[in-house]
Amino acid sequence: MAETRTETDSFGPLEVPKDKYYGAQSARSLINFNIGVETMPPPMIRALGIVKRSAARANMRLDNLDPKIGEAIVNAATEVAEGKLNDHFPLSVWQTGSGTQSNMNANEVIANRAIEILGGEIGSKDPVHPNDHVNRSQSSNDTFPTAMHIASAEEIHHRLIPALQKLRNALNDKAEAFKDIIKIGRTHLQDATPLTLGHEFSGYVAQVDYGIRRVESALPALYALAQGGTAVGTGINTKPGFAEAFAEEVANFTQLPFVTAPNKFEALAAHDAMVEAHGQLNVVAGSLFKIANDLRLLGSGPRSGIAELRLPENEPGSSIMPGKVNPTQCEALTMVCAQVMGNNATVSFSGSQGHLELNVFKPVIVYNVLQSIRLLSDAAISFTDKCVVGVEANEERIRELVERSLMLVTALAPTIGYDNATIIAKTAHKNGTTLREEAIRLGFVSEEDYDDIVRPEKMIGPR
Amino acid sequence: MAETRTETDSFGPLEVPKDKYYGAQSARSLINFNIGVETMPPPMIRALGIVKRSAARANMRLDNLDPKIGEAIVNAATEVAEGKLNDHFPLSVWQTGSGTQSNMNANEVIANRAIEILGGEIGSKDPVHPNDHVNRSQSSNDTFPTAMHIASAEEIHHRLIPALQKLRNALNDKAEAFKDIIKIGRTHLQDATPLTLGHEFSGYVAQVDYGIRRVESALPALYALAQGGTAVGTGINTKPGFAEAFAEEVANFTQLPFVTAPNKFEALAAHDAMVEAHGQLNVVAGSLFKIANDLRLLGSGPRSGIAELRLPENEPGSSIMPGKVNPTQCEALTMVCAQVMGNNATVSFSGSQGHLELNVFKPVIVYNVLQSIRLLSDAAISFTDKCVVGVEANEERIRELVERSLMLVTALAPTIGYDNATIIAKTAHKNGTTLREEAIRLGFVSEEDYDDIVRPEKMIGPR
Amino acid sequence: MAETRTETDSFGPLEVPKDKYYGAQSARSLINFNIGVETMPPPMIRALGIVKRSAARANMRLDNLDPKIGEAIVNAATEVAEGKLNDHFPLSVWQTGSGTQSNMNANEVIANRAIEILGGEIGSKDPVHPNDHVNRSQSSNDTFPTAMHIASAEEIHHRLIPALQKLRNALNDKAEAFKDIIKIGRTHLQDATPLTLGHEFSGYVAQVDYGIRRVESALPALYALAQGGTAVGTGINTKPGFAEAFAEEVANFTQLPFVTAPNKFEALAAHDAMVEAHGQLNVVAGSLFKIANDLRLLGSGPRSGIAELRLPENEPGSSIMPGKVNPTQCEALTMVCAQVMGNNATVSFSGSQGHLELNVFKPVIVYNVLQSIRLLSDAAISFTDKCVVGVEANEERIRELVERSLMLVTALAPTIGYDNATIIAKTAHKNGTTLREEAIRLGFVSEEDYDDIVRPEKMIGPR
Amino acid sequence: MAETRTETDSFGPLEVPKDKYYGAQSARSLINFNIGVETMPPPMIRALGIVKRSAARANMRLDNLDPKIGEAIVNAATEVAEGKLNDHFPLSVWQTGSGTQSNMNANEVIANRAIEILGGEIGSKDPVHPNDHVNRSQSSNDTFPTAMHIASAEEIHHRLIPALQKLRNALNDKAEAFKDIIKIGRTHLQDATPLTLGHEFSGYVAQVDYGIRRVESALPALYALAQGGTAVGTGINTKPGFAEAFAEEVANFTQLPFVTAPNKFEALAAHDAMVEAHGQLNVVAGSLFKIANDLRLLGSGPRSGIAELRLPENEPGSSIMPGKVNPTQCEALTMVCAQVMGNNATVSFSGSQGHLELNVFKPVIVYNVLQSIRLLSDAAISFTDKCVVGVEANEERIRELVERSLMLVTALAPTIGYDNATIIAKTAHKNGTTLREEAIRLGFVSEEDYDDIVRPEKMIGPR
Repeated sequence: MAETRTETDSFGPLEVPKDKYYGAQSARSLINFNIGVETMPPPMIRALGIVKRSAARANMRLDNLDPKIGEAIVNAATEVAEGKLNDHFPLSVWQTGSGTQSNMNANEVIANRAIEILGGEIGSKDPVHPNDHVNRSQSSNDTFPTAMHIASAEEIHHRLIPALQKLRNALNDKAEAFKDIIKIGRTHLQDATPLTLGHEFSGYVAQVDYGIRRVESALPALYALAQGGTAVGTGINTKPGFAEAFAEEVANFTQLPFVTAPNKFEALAAHDAMVEAHGQLNVVAGSLFKIANDLRLLGSGPRSGIAELRLPENEPGSSIMPGKVNPTQCEALTMVCAQVMGNNATVSFSGSQGHLELNVFKPVIVYNVLQSIRLLSDAAISFTDKCVVGVEANEERIRELVERSLMLVTALAPTIGYDNATIIAKTAHKNGTTLREEAIRLGFVSEEDYDDIVRPEKMIGPR
Repeated sequence: MAETRTETDSFGPLEVPKDKYYGAQSARSLINFNIGVETMPPPMIRALGIVKRSAARANMRLDNLDPKIGEAIVNAATEVAEGKLNDHFPLSVWQTGSGTQSNMNANEVIANRAIEILGGEIGSKDPVHPNDHVNRSQSSNDTFPTAMHIASAEEIHHRLIPALQKLRNALNDKAEAFKDIIKIGRTHLQDATPLTLGHEFSGYVAQVDYGIRRVESALPALYALAQGGTAVGTGINTKPGFAEAFAEEVANFTQLPFVTAPNKFEALAAHDAMVEAHGQLNVVAGSLFKIANDLRLLGSGPRSGIAELRLPENEPGSSIMPGKVNPTQCEALTMVCAQVMGNNATVSFSGSQGHLELNVFKPVIVYNVLQSIRLLSDAAISFTDKCVVGVEANEERIRELVERSLMLVTALAPTIGYDNATIIAKTAHKNGTTLREEAIRLGFVSEEDYDDIVRPEKMIGPR
Repeated sequence: MAETRTETDSFGPLEVPKDKYYGAQSARSLINFNIGVETMPPPMIRALGIVKRSAARANMRLDNLDPKIGEAIVNAATEVAEGKLNDHFPLSVWQTGSGTQSNMNANEVIANRAIEILGGEIGSKDPVHPNDHVNRSQSSNDTFPTAMHIASAEEIHHRLIPALQKLRNALNDKAEAFKDIIKIGRTHLQDATPLTLGHEFSGYVAQVDYGIRRVESALPALYALAQGGTAVGTGINTKPGFAEAFAEEVANFTQLPFVTAPNKFEALAAHDAMVEAHGQLNVVAGSLFKIANDLRLLGSGPRSGIAELRLPENEPGSSIMPGKVNPTQCEALTMVCAQVMGNNATVSFSGSQGHLELNVFKPVIVYNVLQSIRLLSDAAISFTDKCVVGVEANEERIRELVERSLMLVTALAPTIGYDNATIIAKTAHKNGTTLREEAIRLGFVSEEDYDDIVRPEKMIGPR
Repeated sequence: MAETRTETDSFGPLEVPKDKYYGAQSARSLINFNIGVETMPPPMIRALGIVKRSAARANMRLDNLDPKIGEAIVNAATEVAEGKLNDHFPLSVWQTGSGTQSNMNANEVIANRAIEILGGEIGSKDPVHPNDHVNRSQSSNDTFPTAMHIASAEEIHHRLIPALQKLRNALNDKAEAFKDIIKIGRTHLQDATPLTLGHEFSGYVAQVDYGIRRVESALPALYALAQGGTAVGTGINTKPGFAEAFAEEVANFTQLPFVTAPNKFEALAAHDAMVEAHGQLNVVAGSLFKIANDLRLLGSGPRSGIAELRLPENEPGSSIMPGKVNPTQCEALTMVCAQVMGNNATVSFSGSQGHLELNVFKPVIVYNVLQSIRLLSDAAISFTDKCVVGVEANEERIRELVERSLMLVTALAPTIGYDNATIIAKTAHKNGTTLREEAIRLGFVSEEDYDDIVRPEKMIGPR
């Protein structure tokens, strides 16, 4: 049994581990919410540190906090923001829907660490009180959604966008490298007119480029912070100017353009900005699903599939089939996308369920948003490094397939008409012959004209 | 402008079209809910007819309704149940969440039609009053959910299960017909050990068989009827025995084993039975998606895909590419499945949103359940008739692919070990040679043993 | 039996109704896709008319179409765009996943109507051929997604945004009208500190304002048109400049800033722009759900609920409970929101399922996007007109509730500390007394200070 | 840096930590799939232990495994099943979609532990080889889905059903305790006719009872095991009888009625049984959401809400509002339900995405199913213990509300007609008077009759 000390909240005393900074309300939460294994994610802990730091500094600027206490809070909160005290944040995601207990967890940890800094007795609430000082001018109802926005914006900015950019660049390198490889197109999974392998990859590049634009477009709404709304959005128990000063502090610390939300009632009672952000993650998931699935299709084989691409072999593919290699990075990424698309349902549902002055699905919303960001980022990097960069074109196979396609007949349609071209294609298909043989045999076109018109390299753009 | 007559409700008089039986509350609903184009689906109108018919008969059995009035109601309601008066049910799905207005629509139509039968003046509410007689012992709060169950159970029983059975049988016919065609297996879309084409189709048969079992398993909960709960579940304004007598009448009329719900509070305030039923539709959608997508993959080509199957050609495939044929039935079916999977989200969300004594998402729930049943049924039939029955095996192609596969090496693993078998496969892959060449060259096995062991026909079952 | 004429496609002759302009491929589609009751929505028919009109004009500008034929096509297509020929578009949503048959439906109707204009024989394909002329320089693979974008952008621009603007203004009028009504706040549905009723409505205004910004933000991606990509994105069978000329024609006709998509491969194979647009509709649905649900909560009663608001009484509320009035517009709107949130799952799923050069879930995607736009628009208008504009504050009730709240104690916390304030609130709650009584009795504050500090009007902002 | 040893797989040597039993393929997976923080859940690790144990025993029964090696495998695998070696299973959920690497993780851990038991050198693959012995007669393609079923069935059986039963009993205790407390009913959140508080809770009991039946109904499909299908469903490299013997071993060990799946092709390529099971979890989530939300509504207040129930006070509710108590258990539970409803989308999507012989979304499916089971179970227990058992009726408040309700007028409708009853209710509402006053003043009923008829206790059932 670990050693404990006694802490108290308004419900009475409680034992907490001596080596932890958290106090009675956190300990009580561990007892009351023994649900699942998911704990508040590190980016939220960091964000709560940023909130407490910025609130203390804003209060000091407004002469609303003793600088000695304030500076100790700033120092302790900065340690939280830097991830040094993550072990002191054990609470479950599945707690109060306002995140009150995680806010109190931050208040308690920072108060005790600040007391320690100031030479006081941990657990004494003196000279730093978790509510009266660390939480001054704040309510869980504004700190927690503020932290949700800070965490999500930082993760999108520092983790997701660079990961997508990396994937985009790797795909673009392939689009460049493959730009002269003419291949058969496929629509409805059926043979169609040709394009280049570079064209195909350029479509992926466009999807990821747009994806980056999409997640970026969600940032401005996340930059608007609820802080200053306190309990119900009115800003009760704050000084005028607190909300603005706070947002400046956050912007300075994070170097991201956070501002105070124009309407605090919306900011507490709705999380539309989070739903919007996850909606864009959901689009990205759909894009990446398509890309990964295409690579899986094009890499299928090696001998009985499409086999136009060779995907890197990273590990033994089968515990029973020797020598088998599988598109495992595509699989990990598509599973991640499936998770993100389900998370989108969770976030959308939760976002709609606010009642009056407060939405009490905050922890589940931020948990899902941060999980989706993390998974998409990590999977994009893994997919890039372990798959995309190593993709090779099987040029021999590609050439073989384009040459025997029947859809090259499309090039004849403007000359001989759609209906005659159809007859050529159907006859060749039936007889197992080439288009050229049938086109000439049926008398629709001369050999010279055929050879001039039906050339894949002339079929990959307007003429 | 159509001719009108004046009808009244407790909000005052209103003009209604002279050639319609509906009255003031229906007309008022058309004004108040001018939303979208979706109207109450015909199976719900039929079910409301059954409800009104059965309530009148149950009331008469309990001496709670003048038989002259009662018989007229029964006759009018039977016409509704038979679909003869569908044109008199114009209301939007997007109305009161209890379906009150559609219940009143039924009350008004049946009252006026019964008045007509009895020689009275339409619109006079005399001798048949929509509330006092047609709605006697009832509330929208119990009639509408009762109709939801009747409509859904009838549609599952008479429409969906026969459609799935038809698909199942067609797939089973193919499984039988293809049972001796040995082909390459594919896992992760990569070549794997062989199986028969019949095996593959047997998996589809199993999925549909289980699907039928799944939707059947949802029926008992749908057979439990809310009727008798009236306003809040207590049965206020009913006579003892009404709920049971009513359920018997419904069972007799529909020839399905409807019973009165054991707990009427649950039956009004929750629609878990509908959510459960749609959950099973959702599983079926997933199954059919997989089957249709597999046929699309196996039919891909004709020259640059897998091309193991030939799907029926039903229409020109392309407005630009002459001679192109596409897996269009697979596409229609997979789109239907996508719709059903989204509908599942709508129904699940709506089912969770009851407040206290009533769930007020009834119309949207039943609209989605009935749409999903209808779409799955129609698409299953279309897919069967226009695709599955005409599917042919391209045996030449199938043979070619199985023979060149590297995964036949798996048969050697029990004899020479997984690691040595891996070396053979990798070497053959690298050199573009056959397994046989490399196995013998590398000295792992004699020619005789190789030819005895590595035979696809010996690799399609335990040995 | 209607009279028929014989039309032919590459699969052979087929009878079509004499009074319809559509031809063999449309008729064949009606036979092959007898699925459900959902037909291609009117905004898509209009958009296909715009596509055909713009393509003919672009081809003429590029000397790629005989002006006599071209002008007839333009005239016929304009009739389609104006909705005059909607009856000639009977095809199901559940067809080929590329929308090929609806594209051919447009080609056939326009060809026959143009033939008629030019005095030819309907069905003869002379002098106007559905493929060779009407579909010139086009493929279903680019016309249909182009029409999806045009239809969605027009509907968002002309239908949804004005509807949301109307709702926003009505809510804003209420926010202004209610700005001095101080009421109890509620968080976690529990009594909290006060705010004004205007504050509450200002939060709704903000949600709708942001919703308008959100759907607007989806428009640029919809303004990018696939046209010019033809079969696989390369633009085969177009002349250089066609894509750009086409987009100009669409922009001129619609007066919306459509442009040609920078990457046509993305535009055919992915529908991320549609998924993104629906993602924003999904956020709006969540916002409107919250607003409607709040009005329902605040209007609950009349005697046993919160009853702070009086919602308009639009119709009799109950078929069994006389005099009952229900929040029916809130219910219609929340049902619509549930539908939209499910549609989001359908669209997201479908958007992820493209294979190589084509996504073949186009009809289901556009059906859901257009349904969601229509439902949100209509429901927003109905909710505004039939509910929001008539909402009244029950000021007596509001005053009564704020005065007896215990959460006014929050105002004391900065003076006497959180822990002492807690004691006051808990004691008053336990004893059924007022805060004032207990605050003074417990000696934490003087009467004068209490009366000065604990005043709701001082608690609705920073101080 | 931890000490390492060298292990090898067919891709070459790799360093692994000396204190771990896992080998090269697991170590390689950690490098290749550095995605997210989610690792394979403990119930899956246990299930893989059960699989390996049962396979070894079945092989020994069929004379297909040296008993010395076999017994060592059984012993090692049993340790895995008992959770003793969980620290040796570090792999990410986001890996190969067949779960191959987690299967190899189990093979490697068990091989090394069995080698250790037999006195060999860890990492030597001698005398126990992870593929040739531990994985004998198996493929990841059948072991992993087998483990998915075992884990899910065990968790449903041992964790979820007891938790739901506990909740059901607590709700039933309340239904009994509250059976004589007559209260106002509410439909559309508007006042309706009365019922008892026991009635209300009986509806919740019914929902949970049906929920238990629902999850039980999903078990038979989970009891069908894929094992014996090996690579593609044919059972290649198994001996006849292996599948059946294996299922017997699992049934004996788990004491649950597992059987071998009738069709192994379905069992590898589809996970409909998992989708079905999660579909039932989804219904349960909807039920629990409704129950928790109702308690939150009924407990709203304490002074400005409905306040008919007193929920237990478990912790301080607010960091800013002293004395505030919130329905935190309702919030944790409803957040869990939102997560489960999103997980349902993930599982449904993933279940539909199988290709030919294999579904490669296995890890994401089982991760979500197990998370949902765990969360629903834990939250049901927490909600029961910390909320339901302590719920108290505020009888004074309940009595006050029922007495002033206008909907008692419903009892008069059978006597005086719906229209007259409506006039009474509307007049009383307008005048702020009682029903009794207006009923008599308007002359519709005598005082005696009124007092006889309009009595809440006579309005809570059929008469």
